[in-house]
Amino acid sequence: MSAADVARVRALVCDVFGTVVDWRGGVARAFEALGRAKGVAADWPALADEWRAGYQPAMQRVRTGDLPWTNLDALHRMILDPLLSRHGLDLSEAETQHLNTAWHRLDPWPDSVPGLTRLKRRFVIGTLSNGNVGLLVDMAKHGGLPWDVVFSAELVRHYKPDAETYRSTYALLGLEPHEVMMVAAHTGDLEAARGYGLRTAFVARPREHGAGRPPAPVAPDAFDVVVGDFEALAQVMGA
Amino acid sequence: MSAADVARVRALVCDVFGTVVDWRGGVARAFEALGRAKGVAADWPALADEWRAGYQPAMQRVRTGDLPWTNLDALHRMILDPLLSRHGLDLSEAETQHLNTAWHRLDPWPDSVPGLTRLKRRFVIGTLSNGNVGLLVDMAKHGGLPWDVVFSAELVRHYKPDAETYRSTYALLGLEPHEVMMVAAHTGDLEAARGYGLRTAFVARPREHGAGRPPAPVAPDAFDVVVGDFEALAQVMGA
Repeated sequence: MSAADVARVRALVCDVFGTVVDWRGGVARAFEALGRAKGVAADWPALADEWRAGYQPAMQRVRTGDLPWTNLDALHRMILDPLLSRHGLDLSEAETQHLNTAWHRLDPWPDSVPGLTRLKRRFVIGTLSNGNVGLLVDMAKHGGLPWDVVFSAELVRHYKPDAETYRSTYALLGLEPHEVMMVAAHTGDLEAARGYGLRTAFVARPREHGAGRPPAPVAPDAFDVVVGDFEALAQVMGA
Repeated sequence: MSAADVARVRALVCDVFGTVVDWRGGVARAFEALGRAKGVAADWPALADEWRAGYQPAMQRVRTGDLPWTNLDALHRMILDPLLSRHGLDLSEAETQHLNTAWHRLDPWPDSVPGLTRLKRRFVIGTLSNGNVGLLVDMAKHGGLPWDVVFSAELVRHYKPDAETYRSTYALLGLEPHEVMMVAAHTGDLEAARGYGLRTAFVARPREHGAGRPPAPVAPDAFDVVVGDFEALAQVMGA
Protein backbone atom coordinates (compact mmCIF):
# COMPACT_ATOMS: atom_id res chain seq x y z
CA MET A 1 0.00 0.00 0.00
CA SER A 2 1.55 3.29 -1.12
CA ALA A 3 1.94 6.34 1.11
CA ALA A 4 -0.66 8.04 -1.10
CA ASP A 5 -3.15 5.24 -0.44
CA VAL A 6 -2.49 5.40 3.30
CA ALA A 7 -3.08 9.15 3.18
CA ARG A 8 -6.53 8.54 1.68
CA VAL A 9 -7.69 6.31 4.54
CA ARG A 10 -9.94 8.22 6.92
CA ALA A 11 -11.43 5.51 9.10
CA LEU A 12 -10.47 2.09 10.44
CA VAL A 13 -13.22 -0.37 11.36
CA CYS A 14 -12.21 -3.37 13.41
CA ASP A 15 -13.43 -6.87 13.86
CA VAL A 16 -13.57 -7.40 17.60
CA PHE A 17 -13.77 -11.05 18.75
CA GLY A 18 -10.27 -12.43 18.37
CA THR A 19 -8.90 -9.31 16.68
CA VAL A 20 -9.23 -6.77 19.52
CA VAL A 21 -10.17 -8.98 22.48
CA ASP A 22 -9.29 -12.49 23.64
CA TRP A 23 -12.68 -14.22 23.60
CA ARG A 24 -11.36 -17.69 24.42
CA GLY A 25 -9.43 -16.68 27.51
CA GLY A 26 -12.24 -14.45 28.75
CA VAL A 27 -15.03 -16.96 28.25
CA ALA A 28 -12.96 -19.77 29.79
CA ARG A 29 -12.34 -17.60 32.87
CA ALA A 30 -16.07 -16.85 33.16
CA PHE A 31 -16.86 -20.60 33.09
CA GLU A 32 -14.07 -21.27 35.57
CA ALA A 33 -15.36 -18.67 38.04
CA LEU A 34 -18.82 -20.24 37.94
CA GLY A 35 -17.34 -23.73 38.25
CA ARG A 36 -15.35 -22.69 41.29
CA ALA A 37 -18.47 -21.24 42.92
CA LYS A 38 -20.33 -24.49 42.17
CA GLY A 39 -17.42 -26.78 43.09
CA VAL A 40 -17.31 -28.23 39.56
CA ALA A 41 -14.20 -28.82 37.45
CA ALA A 42 -14.05 -29.11 33.66
CA ASP A 43 -11.90 -28.24 30.66
CA TRP A 44 -13.16 -24.65 30.59
CA PRO A 45 -11.27 -23.53 27.45
CA ALA A 46 -12.87 -26.50 25.66
CA LEU A 47 -16.29 -25.23 26.75
CA ALA A 48 -15.40 -21.80 25.39
CA ASP A 49 -14.50 -23.47 22.09
CA GLU A 50 -17.74 -25.42 22.10
CA TRP A 51 -19.77 -22.24 22.66
CA ARG A 52 -17.90 -20.46 19.89
CA ALA A 53 -18.42 -23.44 17.57
CA GLY A 54 -22.13 -22.66 17.62
CA TYR A 55 -21.55 -19.07 16.50
CA GLN A 56 -21.24 -19.41 12.71
CA PRO A 57 -24.09 -21.97 12.39
CA ALA A 58 -26.40 -19.71 14.45
CA MET A 59 -25.60 -16.65 12.32
CA GLN A 60 -26.05 -18.75 9.21
CA ARG A 61 -29.64 -19.48 10.29
CA VAL A 62 -30.21 -15.69 10.38
CA ARG A 63 -28.40 -15.11 7.08
CA THR A 64 -30.55 -17.69 5.31
CA GLY A 65 -33.80 -16.46 6.86
CA ASP A 66 -34.34 -19.67 8.85
CA LEU A 67 -34.38 -17.37 11.90
CA PRO A 68 -35.69 -13.78 11.83
CA TRP A 69 -33.19 -11.12 12.90
CA THR A 70 -31.77 -12.21 16.26
CA ASN A 71 -28.94 -10.32 17.92
CA LEU A 72 -25.77 -11.95 19.18
CA ASP A 73 -26.71 -11.92 22.86
CA ALA A 74 -29.80 -13.95 21.96
CA LEU A 75 -27.86 -16.31 19.66
CA HIS A 76 -25.26 -16.84 22.38
CA ARG A 77 -28.03 -17.80 24.77
CA MET A 78 -29.58 -20.20 22.26
CA ILE A 79 -26.21 -21.97 22.02
CA LEU A 80 -25.44 -21.79 25.74
CA ASP A 81 -28.58 -23.44 27.13
CA PRO A 82 -28.10 -26.85 25.45
CA LEU A 83 -24.33 -26.66 26.11
CA LEU A 84 -25.00 -26.31 29.84
CA SER A 85 -27.39 -29.25 29.70
CA ARG A 86 -24.92 -31.44 27.83
CA HIS A 87 -22.31 -30.80 30.52
CA GLY A 88 -24.73 -31.18 33.43
CA LEU A 89 -24.11 -27.63 34.60
CA ASP A 90 -27.16 -26.57 36.59
CA LEU A 91 -27.23 -22.78 36.78
CA SER A 92 -29.89 -20.36 37.97
CA GLU A 93 -31.38 -17.93 35.47
CA ALA A 94 -29.29 -15.11 37.00
CA GLU A 95 -26.10 -17.18 36.75
CA THR A 96 -26.89 -18.17 33.16
CA GLN A 97 -27.61 -14.57 32.22
CA HIS A 98 -24.36 -13.42 33.81
CA LEU A 99 -22.41 -16.12 31.99
CA ASN A 100 -24.12 -15.21 28.70
CA THR A 101 -22.81 -11.65 29.04
CA ALA A 102 -19.21 -12.85 29.57
CA TRP A 103 -18.80 -11.69 25.95
CA HIS A 104 -19.46 -8.11 27.16
CA ARG A 105 -16.50 -8.32 29.55
CA LEU A 106 -13.70 -9.74 27.39
CA ASP A 107 -10.24 -8.29 27.91
CA PRO A 108 -8.35 -6.62 25.07
CA TRP A 109 -5.07 -8.12 23.86
CA PRO A 110 -2.26 -6.08 25.46
CA ASP A 111 -1.48 -4.05 22.31
CA SER A 112 -5.10 -3.18 21.45
CA VAL A 113 -5.67 -0.12 23.65
CA PRO A 114 -2.24 1.50 23.10
CA GLY A 115 -2.42 0.87 19.35
CA LEU A 116 -6.00 2.11 18.99
CA THR A 117 -5.21 5.17 21.09
CA ARG A 118 -2.47 6.08 18.63
CA LEU A 119 -4.68 5.36 15.61
CA LYS A 120 -7.50 7.49 17.04
CA ARG A 121 -5.30 10.58 16.82
CA ARG A 122 -5.18 10.34 13.04
CA PHE A 123 -8.21 8.26 12.04
CA VAL A 124 -11.81 7.65 12.94
CA ILE A 125 -11.72 4.27 14.69
CA GLY A 126 -14.74 2.04 15.05
CA THR A 127 -15.90 -1.50 15.51
CA LEU A 128 -17.42 -3.54 12.74
CA SER A 129 -18.58 -6.58 14.63
CA ASN A 130 -21.30 -9.18 14.66
CA GLY A 131 -21.68 -8.34 18.35
CA ASN A 132 -24.76 -6.31 19.25
CA VAL A 133 -24.43 -2.63 20.13
CA GLY A 134 -24.94 -3.10 23.88
CA LEU A 135 -22.33 -5.86 23.97
CA LEU A 136 -19.79 -3.68 22.14
CA VAL A 137 -20.46 -0.63 24.32
CA ASP A 138 -20.15 -2.67 27.51
CA MET A 139 -16.93 -4.23 26.25
CA ALA A 140 -15.46 -0.83 25.42
CA LYS A 141 -16.27 0.45 28.91
CA HIS A 142 -14.81 -2.73 30.46
CA GLY A 143 -11.57 -2.66 28.51
CA GLY A 144 -11.09 1.06 27.82
CA LEU A 145 -11.41 0.67 24.05
CA PRO A 146 -11.46 4.25 22.70
CA TRP A 147 -13.88 3.83 19.77
CA ASP A 148 -15.15 6.91 17.97
CA VAL A 149 -18.12 4.97 16.65
CA VAL A 150 -19.72 1.56 17.15
CA PHE A 151 -20.75 -0.19 13.93
CA SER A 152 -22.54 -3.47 14.44
CA ALA A 153 -24.35 -6.09 12.43
CA GLU A 154 -27.31 -5.17 14.63
CA LEU A 155 -27.59 -1.71 13.02
CA VAL A 156 -28.27 -3.24 9.60
CA ARG A 157 -29.76 -6.54 10.80
CA HIS A 158 -27.31 -8.53 8.75
CA TYR A 159 -24.31 -10.52 9.92
CA LYS A 160 -20.87 -10.28 8.34
CA PRO A 161 -19.96 -11.16 5.66
CA ASP A 162 -23.29 -9.88 4.25
CA ALA A 163 -22.69 -6.80 2.08
CA GLU A 164 -24.89 -4.53 4.23
CA THR A 165 -22.39 -4.64 7.11
CA TYR A 166 -19.35 -3.41 5.17
CA ARG A 167 -21.37 -0.90 3.13
CA SER A 168 -22.89 0.65 6.25
CA THR A 169 -19.48 1.86 7.42
CA TYR A 170 -18.63 4.14 4.53
CA ALA A 171 -22.23 5.09 3.85
CA LEU A 172 -22.83 6.24 7.44
CA LEU A 173 -19.48 8.04 7.64
CA GLY A 174 -20.10 9.79 4.32
CA LEU A 175 -16.90 8.32 2.87
CA GLU A 176 -15.84 6.38 -0.21
CA PRO A 177 -15.15 2.64 0.25
CA HIS A 178 -11.38 3.10 -0.25
CA GLU A 179 -11.32 5.66 2.57
CA VAL A 180 -12.27 2.93 5.06
CA MET A 181 -9.92 0.15 6.17
CA MET A 182 -11.21 -3.11 7.63
CA VAL A 183 -8.94 -4.52 10.36
CA ALA A 184 -9.26 -8.19 11.28
CA ALA A 185 -7.38 -11.32 12.30
CA HIS A 186 -9.56 -13.38 9.95
CA THR A 187 -8.88 -13.64 6.24
CA GLY A 188 -12.53 -14.29 5.28
CA ASP A 189 -13.65 -11.03 6.88
CA LEU A 190 -10.93 -9.11 5.03
CA GLU A 191 -11.63 -10.80 1.70
CA ALA A 192 -15.28 -9.85 1.97
CA ALA A 193 -14.41 -6.26 2.89
CA ARG A 194 -12.03 -6.05 -0.07
CA GLY A 195 -14.81 -7.25 -2.32
CA TYR A 196 -16.80 -4.13 -1.38
CA GLY A 197 -13.85 -1.82 -2.03
CA LEU A 198 -12.54 -1.32 1.51
CA ARG A 199 -8.83 -1.29 2.34
CA THR A 200 -7.70 -4.24 4.43
CA ALA A 201 -5.33 -4.77 7.35
CA PHE A 202 -4.57 -8.21 8.76
CA VAL A 203 -3.51 -8.34 12.41
CA ALA A 204 -2.09 -11.74 13.35
CA ARG A 205 -3.53 -13.32 16.50
CA PRO A 206 -1.71 -16.65 16.72
CA ARG A 207 -3.12 -17.40 20.19
CA GLU A 208 -6.80 -16.72 19.40
CA HIS A 209 -7.61 -20.46 19.57
CA GLY A 210 -5.09 -21.17 22.33
CA ALA A 211 -1.36 -21.80 22.42
CA GLY A 212 -0.24 -24.42 19.92
CA ARG A 213 -3.22 -23.90 17.60
CA PRO A 214 -2.02 -21.06 15.37
CA PRO A 215 -4.08 -20.32 12.25
CA ALA A 216 -2.47 -20.76 8.83
CA PRO A 217 0.17 -18.12 8.12
CA VAL A 218 -0.77 -15.14 5.95
CA ALA A 219 1.56 -13.86 3.24
CA PRO A 220 2.93 -10.32 3.78
CA ASP A 221 1.27 -9.15 0.56
CA ALA A 222 -2.09 -10.90 1.07
CA PHE A 223 -3.74 -7.64 2.21
CA ASP A 224 -2.96 -3.93 2.04
CA VAL A 225 -1.30 -4.20 5.45
CA VAL A 226 -0.18 -7.33 7.33
CA VAL A 227 1.06 -6.75 10.86
CA GLY A 228 1.60 -8.53 14.17
CA ASP A 229 -0.41 -6.21 16.43
CA PHE A 230 -2.19 -2.86 16.73
CA GLU A 231 0.94 -0.95 17.68
CA ALA A 232 2.59 -2.12 14.47
CA LEU A 233 -0.56 -1.10 12.59
CA ALA A 234 -0.34 2.40 14.09
CA GLN A 235 3.30 2.57 13.01
CA VAL A 236 2.55 1.51 9.42
CA MET A 237 -0.36 3.95 9.23
CA GLY A 238 1.78 6.85 10.45
CA ALA A 239 -0.22 7.36 13.64
CA MET B 1 -35.83 12.23 40.99
CA SER B 2 -34.94 9.97 43.91
CA ALA B 3 -31.49 8.55 44.56
CA ALA B 4 -32.95 5.12 43.74
CA ASP B 5 -34.13 6.37 40.34
CA VAL B 6 -30.73 7.93 39.62
CA ALA B 7 -29.10 4.61 40.53
CA ARG B 8 -31.21 2.86 37.88
CA VAL B 9 -30.00 5.11 35.04
CA ARG B 10 -27.35 3.36 32.96
CA ALA B 11 -27.03 5.58 29.89
CA LEU B 12 -27.39 9.25 29.02
CA VAL B 13 -28.21 10.20 25.43
CA CYS B 14 -27.75 13.81 24.47
CA ASP B 15 -29.26 16.16 21.99
CA VAL B 16 -26.32 17.87 20.32
CA PHE B 17 -27.14 21.09 18.41
CA GLY B 18 -27.63 23.76 21.06
CA THR B 19 -27.33 21.33 23.98
CA VAL B 20 -23.71 20.19 23.60
CA VAL B 21 -22.39 22.57 20.92
CA ASP B 22 -22.96 26.22 20.00
CA TRP B 23 -24.35 25.90 16.47
CA ARG B 24 -25.14 29.61 16.04
CA GLY B 25 -21.70 30.87 16.97
CA GLY B 26 -19.97 28.20 14.92
CA VAL B 27 -22.04 28.64 11.79
CA ALA B 28 -21.77 32.43 12.01
CA ARG B 29 -17.98 32.15 12.21
CA ALA B 30 -17.93 29.84 9.17
CA PHE B 31 -19.94 32.42 7.17
CA GLU B 32 -17.71 35.21 8.43
CA ALA B 33 -14.51 33.41 7.39
CA LEU B 34 -15.89 32.94 3.87
CA GLY B 35 -17.11 36.54 3.77
CA ARG B 36 -13.68 37.80 4.77
CA ALA B 37 -12.04 35.71 2.04
CA LYS B 38 -14.54 37.13 -0.48
CA GLY B 39 -14.46 40.69 0.84
CA VAL B 40 -18.17 40.59 1.68
CA ALA B 41 -19.81 41.83 4.90
CA ALA B 42 -23.19 40.75 6.26
CA ASP B 43 -25.02 39.99 9.50
CA TRP B 44 -23.51 36.51 9.76
CA PRO B 45 -25.37 35.39 12.91
CA ALA B 46 -28.61 36.31 11.10
CA LEU B 47 -27.56 34.03 8.23
CA ALA B 48 -26.92 31.25 10.73
CA ASP B 49 -30.44 31.80 12.08
CA GLU B 50 -31.88 31.77 8.57
CA TRP B 51 -30.14 28.48 7.76
CA ARG B 52 -31.36 26.98 11.03
CA ALA B 53 -34.89 28.22 10.34
CA GLY B 54 -35.03 25.84 7.38
CA TYR B 55 -34.16 22.85 9.59
CA GLN B 56 -37.53 21.89 11.08
CA PRO B 57 -39.48 22.41 7.82
CA ALA B 58 -36.96 20.26 5.93
CA MET B 59 -37.17 17.44 8.49
CA GLN B 60 -40.94 17.75 8.43
CA ARG B 61 -40.91 16.96 4.70
CA VAL B 62 -39.08 13.72 5.55
CA ARG B 63 -41.35 12.93 8.50
CA THR B 64 -44.47 13.28 6.34
CA GLY B 65 -43.00 11.30 3.45
CA ASP B 66 -42.94 14.30 1.10
CA LEU B 67 -39.20 13.57 0.82
CA PRO B 68 -37.71 10.06 1.03
CA TRP B 69 -35.11 9.56 3.76
CA THR B 70 -32.54 12.33 3.38
CA ASN B 71 -29.77 12.81 5.92
CA LEU B 72 -29.01 16.12 7.60
CA ASP B 73 -25.98 16.99 5.49
CA ALA B 74 -28.20 16.75 2.42
CA LEU B 75 -31.05 18.72 4.05
CA HIS B 76 -28.58 21.41 5.12
CA ARG B 77 -27.39 21.69 1.53
CA MET B 78 -30.97 21.93 0.22
CA ILE B 79 -31.52 24.89 2.57
CA LEU B 80 -28.13 26.48 1.97
CA ASP B 81 -28.19 26.76 -1.82
CA PRO B 82 -31.24 29.08 -2.05
CA LEU B 83 -30.01 31.01 1.01
CA LEU B 84 -26.73 31.78 -0.77
CA SER B 85 -28.65 32.90 -3.86
CA ARG B 86 -30.95 35.15 -1.84
CA HIS B 87 -27.95 36.89 -0.33
CA GLY B 88 -25.97 37.09 -3.59
CA LEU B 89 -23.15 34.98 -2.18
CA ASP B 90 -21.39 33.39 -5.14
CA LEU B 91 -19.38 30.43 -3.89
CA SER B 92 -17.59 27.64 -5.71
CA GLU B 93 -18.77 24.08 -5.22
CA ALA B 94 -15.78 23.41 -2.95
CA GLU B 95 -16.51 26.53 -0.87
CA THR B 96 -20.20 25.61 -0.61
CA GLN B 97 -19.36 22.05 0.42
CA HIS B 98 -16.93 23.32 3.06
CA LEU B 99 -19.53 25.75 4.40
CA ASN B 100 -22.16 22.99 4.44
CA THR B 101 -19.94 20.94 6.73
CA ALA B 102 -19.54 23.81 9.21
CA TRP B 103 -22.01 21.78 11.28
CA HIS B 104 -19.33 19.06 11.57
CA ARG B 105 -16.94 21.55 13.19
CA LEU B 106 -19.06 23.25 15.85
CA ASP B 107 -17.39 23.98 19.18
CA PRO B 108 -18.73 22.53 22.43
CA TRP B 109 -20.01 24.87 25.13
CA PRO B 110 -17.21 25.23 27.73
CA ASP B 111 -18.82 22.85 30.27
CA SER B 112 -19.68 20.08 27.77
CA VAL B 113 -16.38 18.17 27.61
CA PRO B 114 -15.55 18.36 31.35
CA GLY B 115 -19.12 17.41 32.31
CA LEU B 116 -19.35 14.54 29.80
CA THR B 117 -15.93 13.26 30.84
CA ARG B 118 -17.19 12.99 34.42
CA LEU B 119 -20.47 11.37 33.33
CA LYS B 120 -18.61 8.82 31.16
CA ARG B 121 -16.97 7.36 34.27
CA ARG B 122 -20.33 6.23 35.64
CA PHE B 123 -22.66 6.04 32.64
CA VAL B 124 -22.73 5.10 29.00
CA ILE B 125 -22.87 8.45 27.21
CA GLY B 126 -24.09 8.89 23.68
CA THR B 127 -25.58 11.30 21.22
CA LEU B 128 -29.20 11.17 20.14
CA SER B 129 -29.22 13.70 17.38
CA ASN B 130 -30.88 14.45 14.08
CA GLY B 131 -27.36 14.96 12.73
CA ASN B 132 -26.05 12.18 10.51
CA VAL B 133 -23.45 9.73 11.82
CA GLY B 134 -20.54 11.22 9.87
CA LEU B 135 -21.41 14.71 11.09
CA LEU B 136 -21.54 13.55 14.71
CA VAL B 137 -18.28 11.60 14.47
CA ASP B 138 -16.47 14.54 12.85
CA MET B 139 -17.86 16.88 15.51
CA ALA B 140 -16.68 14.60 18.31
CA LYS B 141 -13.16 14.46 16.83
CA HIS B 142 -13.17 18.25 16.37
CA GLY B 143 -14.33 19.09 19.88
CA GLY B 144 -13.04 16.11 21.87
CA LEU B 145 -16.52 14.89 22.82
CA PRO B 146 -15.94 11.53 24.56
CA TRP B 147 -19.02 9.61 23.36
CA ASP B 148 -19.26 5.89 24.04
CA VAL B 149 -21.79 5.49 21.26
CA VAL B 150 -23.26 7.61 18.46
CA PHE B 151 -27.03 7.33 18.10
CA SER B 152 -28.47 9.24 15.16
CA ALA B 153 -31.76 9.71 13.37
CA GLU B 154 -29.85 8.33 10.38
CA LEU B 155 -29.61 4.87 11.96
CA VAL B 156 -33.39 4.50 12.04
CA ARG B 157 -34.18 6.82 9.13
CA HIS B 158 -36.55 8.84 11.25
CA TYR B 159 -36.06 12.32 12.69
CA LYS B 160 -36.79 13.24 16.29
CA PRO B 161 -39.37 13.40 17.71
CA ASP B 162 -40.48 10.25 15.84
CA ALA B 163 -40.75 7.30 18.24
CA GLU B 164 -38.13 5.20 16.41
CA THR B 165 -35.34 7.56 17.48
CA TYR B 166 -35.95 7.36 21.25
CA ARG B 167 -36.78 3.64 21.14
CA SER B 168 -33.56 2.82 19.28
CA THR B 169 -31.46 3.95 22.24
CA TYR B 170 -32.69 1.50 24.85
CA ALA B 171 -33.36 -1.25 22.32
CA LEU B 172 -29.80 -1.15 20.96
CA LEU B 173 -28.25 -0.88 24.42
CA GLY B 174 -30.35 -3.78 25.72
CA LEU B 175 -31.84 -1.58 28.46
CA GLU B 176 -35.27 -0.66 29.76
CA PRO B 177 -36.59 2.82 28.83
CA HIS B 178 -36.23 4.13 32.39
CA GLU B 179 -32.55 3.13 32.38
CA VAL B 180 -31.89 5.76 29.68
CA MET B 181 -31.93 9.50 30.31
CA MET B 182 -32.45 11.99 27.48
CA VAL B 183 -30.45 15.20 27.94
CA ALA B 184 -31.49 18.30 26.00
CA ALA B 185 -31.85 22.06 26.11
CA HIS B 186 -35.21 21.79 24.34
CA THR B 187 -38.42 20.97 26.14
CA GLY B 188 -40.12 19.37 23.12
CA ASP B 189 -37.32 16.81 22.76
CA LEU B 190 -37.58 15.93 26.45
CA GLU B 191 -41.35 15.73 26.43
CA ALA B 192 -41.22 13.28 23.52
CA ALA B 193 -38.55 11.19 25.27
CA ARG B 194 -40.63 11.12 28.45
CA GLY B 195 -43.57 9.89 26.43
CA TYR B 196 -41.55 6.79 25.52
CA GLY B 197 -40.52 6.15 29.11
CA LEU B 198 -37.05 7.71 29.18
CA ARG B 199 -35.76 9.78 32.07
CA THR B 200 -35.22 13.43 31.23
CA ALA B 201 -32.61 16.07 32.03
CA PHE B 202 -32.96 19.68 30.93
CA VAL B 203 -29.73 21.63 30.49
CA ALA B 204 -30.37 25.36 30.14
CA ARG B 205 -28.64 27.08 27.21
CA PRO B 206 -29.82 30.68 27.47
CA ARG B 207 -27.40 31.84 24.74
CA GLU B 208 -28.29 29.23 22.11
CA HIS B 209 -30.09 31.86 19.99
CA GLY B 210 -27.70 34.67 20.91
CA ALA B 211 -27.36 37.01 23.85
CA GLY B 212 -30.61 38.72 24.77
CA ARG B 213 -32.81 36.03 23.22
CA PRO B 214 -33.18 33.53 26.07
CA PRO B 215 -35.82 30.81 25.71
CA ALA B 216 -38.73 30.70 28.14
CA PRO B 217 -37.65 29.62 31.63
CA VAL B 218 -38.20 26.03 32.70
CA ALA B 219 -39.55 25.15 36.15
CA PRO B 220 -37.16 23.21 38.40
CA ASP B 221 -39.61 20.29 38.54
CA ALA B 222 -40.53 20.24 34.84
CA PHE B 223 -38.20 17.26 34.19
CA ASP B 224 -36.41 14.62 36.28
CA VAL B 225 -33.37 16.90 36.39
CA VAL B 226 -33.12 20.61 35.54
CA VAL B 227 -29.60 22.06 35.56
CA GLY B 228 -27.54 24.91 34.18
CA ASP B 229 -24.78 22.94 32.49
CA PHE B 230 -23.14 19.51 32.07
CA GLU B 231 -20.93 19.88 35.13
CA ALA B 232 -24.01 20.43 37.28
CA LEU B 233 -25.60 17.40 35.60
CA ALA B 234 -22.57 15.28 36.54
CA GLN B 235 -22.87 16.53 40.11
CA VAL B 236 -26.59 15.69 40.35
CA MET B 237 -26.01 12.27 38.82
CA GLY B 238 -23.23 11.45 41.28
CA ALA B 239 -20.53 11.24 38.61
